[in-house]
Amino acid sequence: MAAWGERLAGVRGVLLDISGVLYDGGEGGGAPIVGSVEALARLKRSQLKVRFCTNESQKSRGDLVGMLRRLGFDISEGEVTAPAPAACLILKERGLRPHLLIHDGVRSEFDQIDTSNPNCVVIADAGEGFSYQNMNKAFQVLMELENPVLFSLGKGRYYKETSGLMLDVGPYTKALEYACGIEAEVVGKPSPEFFKSALWEMRVEAHQAIMIGDDIVGDVSGAQRCGMRALQVRTGKFRPSDEHHPEVKADGYVDNLAEAVDLLLQHADK
Amino acid sequence: MAAWGERLAGVRGVLLDISGVLYDGGEGGGAPIVGSVEALARLKRSQLKVRFCTNESQKSRGDLVGMLRRLGFDISEGEVTAPAPAACLILKERGLRPHLLIHDGVRSEFDQIDTSNPNCVVIADAGEGFSYQNMNKAFQVLMELENPVLFSLGKGRYYKETSGLMLDVGPYTKALEYACGIEAEVVGKPSPEFFKSALWEMRVEAHQAIMIGDDIVGDVSGAQRCGMRALQVRTGKFRPSDEHHPEVKADGYVDNLAEAVDLLLQHADK
Repeated sequence: MAAWGERLAGVRGVLLDISGVLYDGGEGGGAPIVGSVEALARLKRSQLKVRFCTNESQKSRGDLVGMLRRLGFDISEGEVTAPAPAACLILKERGLRPHLLIHDGVRSEFDQIDTSNPNCVVIADAGEGFSYQNMNKAFQVLMELENPVLFSLGKGRYYKETSGLMLDVGPYTKALEYACGIEAEVVGKPSPEFFKSALWEMRVEAHQAIMIGDDIVGDVSGAQRCGMRALQVRTGKFRPSDEHHPEVKADGYVDNLAEAVDLLLQHADK
Repeated sequence: MAAWGERLAGVRGVLLDISGVLYDGGEGGGAPIVGSVEALARLKRSQLKVRFCTNESQKSRGDLVGMLRRLGFDISEGEVTAPAPAACLILKERGLRPHLLIHDGVRSEFDQIDTSNPNCVVIADAGEGFSYQNMNKAFQVLMELENPVLFSLGKGRYYKETSGLMLDVGPYTKALEYACGIEAEVVGKPSPEFFKSALWEMRVEAHQAIMIGDDIVGDVSGAQRCGMRALQVRTGKFRPSDEHHPEVKADGYVDNLAEAVDLLLQHADK
């Protein structure tokens, strides 16, 4: 047992990242990470509250949950905090009409949003949709606005698929920021508002919650800056250098979700 | 006549940007900017030395010059300082084998370069070649290197074609820098080494030279930081806000190359 296991005392709620923690995406939908299906089942049988906090923006919540259920995970749509629905709330509140640079798989989340005569841009992980033509169109929309507003659904650098590391939305957001001389508003991790909405949905205070993720910046640092604890798993996009990150230190590092759940069930209620 | 015309006294050599100063690119090769063909001819008939200093990285120097000659410009290949040949010299000096994320139009410049088993990446204005797949491949090459080295042929934000503003290489360089946590080495404007090589080819000292360009950062600020004077033309990618840039002030602003040449011929030898 890791000596830092004692730092888990008093945890009442667990926020779980999905990609790289539950499964690795890829051709044919991806594959569960070994032990994660069973670990989630054990966690959900415990006293701990569980919620999923993801930056997944290629799929609608419905499609994501359907895929995970087919892989064997016990998860329902209402348990997932995801950036596309959060962005829709913001767009409605502020009366904004977006030009959407997004994956077709998540387009249905924006069905109720007016996209005519756009006055902002929403960028998400568009994958192959990040063609030069599509990037240039988003750039031109922004350059024509007097006050260009860009929303980025997460700002991850890359993620891991079964075939290797893949560019996430963050690099493309940086590209538009540089091209237009602006700064994007991030909707998703590591935005504090996003973590707070997940905590609120779980009805748990930050100091009683722990984030489990594979991203040292988006998951670990983001959660810690909200007053939560955070574990990094050595799966997904984890790289050994993460354990010597110059600015971020997780409350603990575990080999995978199964080890995280073992430790939580052993220490959380102490 | 602009009052600042007196600042042109003592100029002996003129460095000319190409895109946005001589012509605007676009479908069918683009079009000369009104008055530029004749202005260049007058400049070359004068006592002033002239050299072209471009970040063009979609075309080989030969193709660029051929296109400009067809548009009526008096220009030859030996008069052009361009980033691809400069990059080839650096690659050879340092024994580097690049993965090339470049436009097919400039590939011939790298004919003599070993690209097997790459140990660095060269990114240039690839245009439509900036597909997700090509960006991801360059990213993966960099992530597999122990000391990732990225050369960027220029770092422009965008340029103007006859159809509108187009993303240049800079945003895509920023994307790879962010994805990999590295900083690119710029070959081209505004790198001081690049301006210095153009001055050396022209055999003129920095304080006797003036840069004429449409880019307030890449052309004007870059040249000034080398000890040169710099004029910005109100053609190409120029935007009115450039004249109130928070950090950069050109030695003068002119409507186009024709006005710049008028003023130079009037004041340079005073």
